[in-house]
Amino acid sequence: MILTSKNNPLIKETISLKEKKFRKEKKCFLVEGAKMASECRKSGLKVERVFVSESYRGEADDSAIRVSDEVFARLSDEKTPQGILCVVKIPEKPLCPPRESCLFLDGISDPGNMGAIIRTANAAGYRELYLAECTDPYSPKSVRASMSGIFFVNLYTGERKEILSALAGVPILAADMDGENIFSFSPPAKYVLAIGNEANGISEEVFKAAEYTLKIPMQASQESLNAAVSAGIAMYVLKREQFIKSNR
Amino acid sequence: MILTSKNNPLIKETISLKEKKFRKEKKCFLVEGAKMASECRKSGLKVERVFVSESYRGEADDSAIRVSDEVFARLSDEKTPQGILCVVKIPEKPLCPPRESCLFLDGISDPGNMGAIIRTANAAGYRELYLAECTDPYSPKSVRASMSGIFFVNLYTGERKEILSALAGVPILAADMDGENIFSFSPPAKYVLAIGNEANGISEEVFKAAEYTLKIPMQASQESLNAAVSAGIAMYVLKREQFIKSNR
Repeated sequence: MILTSKNNPLIKETISLKEKKFRKEKKCFLVEGAKMASECRKSGLKVERVFVSESYRGEADDSAIRVSDEVFARLSDEKTPQGILCVVKIPEKPLCPPRESCLFLDGISDPGNMGAIIRTANAAGYRELYLAECTDPYSPKSVRASMSGIFFVNLYTGERKEILSALAGVPILAADMDGENIFSFSPPAKYVLAIGNEANGISEEVFKAAEYTLKIPMQASQESLNAAVSAGIAMYVLKREQFIKSNR
Repeated sequence: MILTSKNNPLIKETISLKEKKFRKEKKCFLVEGAKMASECRKSGLKVERVFVSESYRGEADDSAIRVSDEVFARLSDEKTPQGILCVVKIPEKPLCPPRESCLFLDGISDPGNMGAIIRTANAAGYRELYLAECTDPYSPKSVRASMSGIFFVNLYTGERKEILSALAGVPILAADMDGENIFSFSPPAKYVLAIGNEANGISEEVFKAAEYTLKIPMQASQESLNAAVSAGIAMYVLKREQFIKSNR
């Protein structure tokens, strides 16, 4: 059977998951594309439902719901949809202290940056990310930019104050333009790397709680770096010693 | 006097500069926003013409051309235009060997990545960028993402073969997933860092010409990094010693 109606309640509900409000309500998000769908399964996240388009020829479970290409285009957030989309449960993570060095994203507002930061965090082995006043990491654009990274990291969302209290005792390193040179800095064994908003940087509240302020040195003619780029440089530079040792 | 017609030849010509074909023909590109316009002047690039919208209240030269808000919206590439836009001469740079360590962008296709790489290159002090088969760095989106960086670096565009011959004698370090660990690598005093296409990496031709292949180590669950992020990490990690010494 092929679903052909945009007014089918299941289709309407799935389309609604493009919006943050409904993702919050249904505690689900959308994952698109064959590669992403397969990585999502590997990660162990709970896939609630799979939709495939009429013309989709890739692998899919027998339980996948076939929909017309027209209906699929409505479900999809892509310009050229691959024809497979999953509804995935958002893992519920109560705030808890970090096990290892972690990230504190303090007001990241662009979904592309959010996804790219999650992607880099997973690559660099930062498995715990604390998010305060950020764009929703489960938006289609952020999920896509994370390139599966979002399936493998732990995301904790909360108020700044709550997060700071969960992080208590672990030194916070705030990335900032006026800090000490990150290349001459010896990080403690366990730390929180805090990354601020694209335009305004780290919030006053987090800044005050930070033990160290670190900068990425820059030529005078460039005022700042892209948030995802500077987060990536900081994440990797701080783990330099581990990367030399492990030599992965 | 305020220009109010979209059919004015000057307006039509300026709008055409949103397209690569016409940028190439007229050897000009568009720069938008007050900050970008002021940085552009500082850089010494030749500003051919300035347009400001009727409602623009910021600083502008007497020679600036006032246009109606409606006409300005046509010139602009922004959702919420600031009301100032410059037509700037594209500097003509004949291919020549690099003076310092430089970048070779080998097939970067996304304008946002292109701009972010230029921004990071300027910040990290890579002033010479060689581009083969890349998206046009002078597109409005790339210029915007470069956050003025494009005014301060030297861009050389050419065929791979021509570029390789201009770079002859300077060791090429190819960023690749199967290379040696970049964190254990001691770079030569002067090198070319080559960055490949977002999906396919470095081309066969450049790969063959490379002296070293370097990877950014990654956890197994993440296959790759965003091109601008990995370029940024590589640019900075390779200059680590200089950044420690100069302590800027």
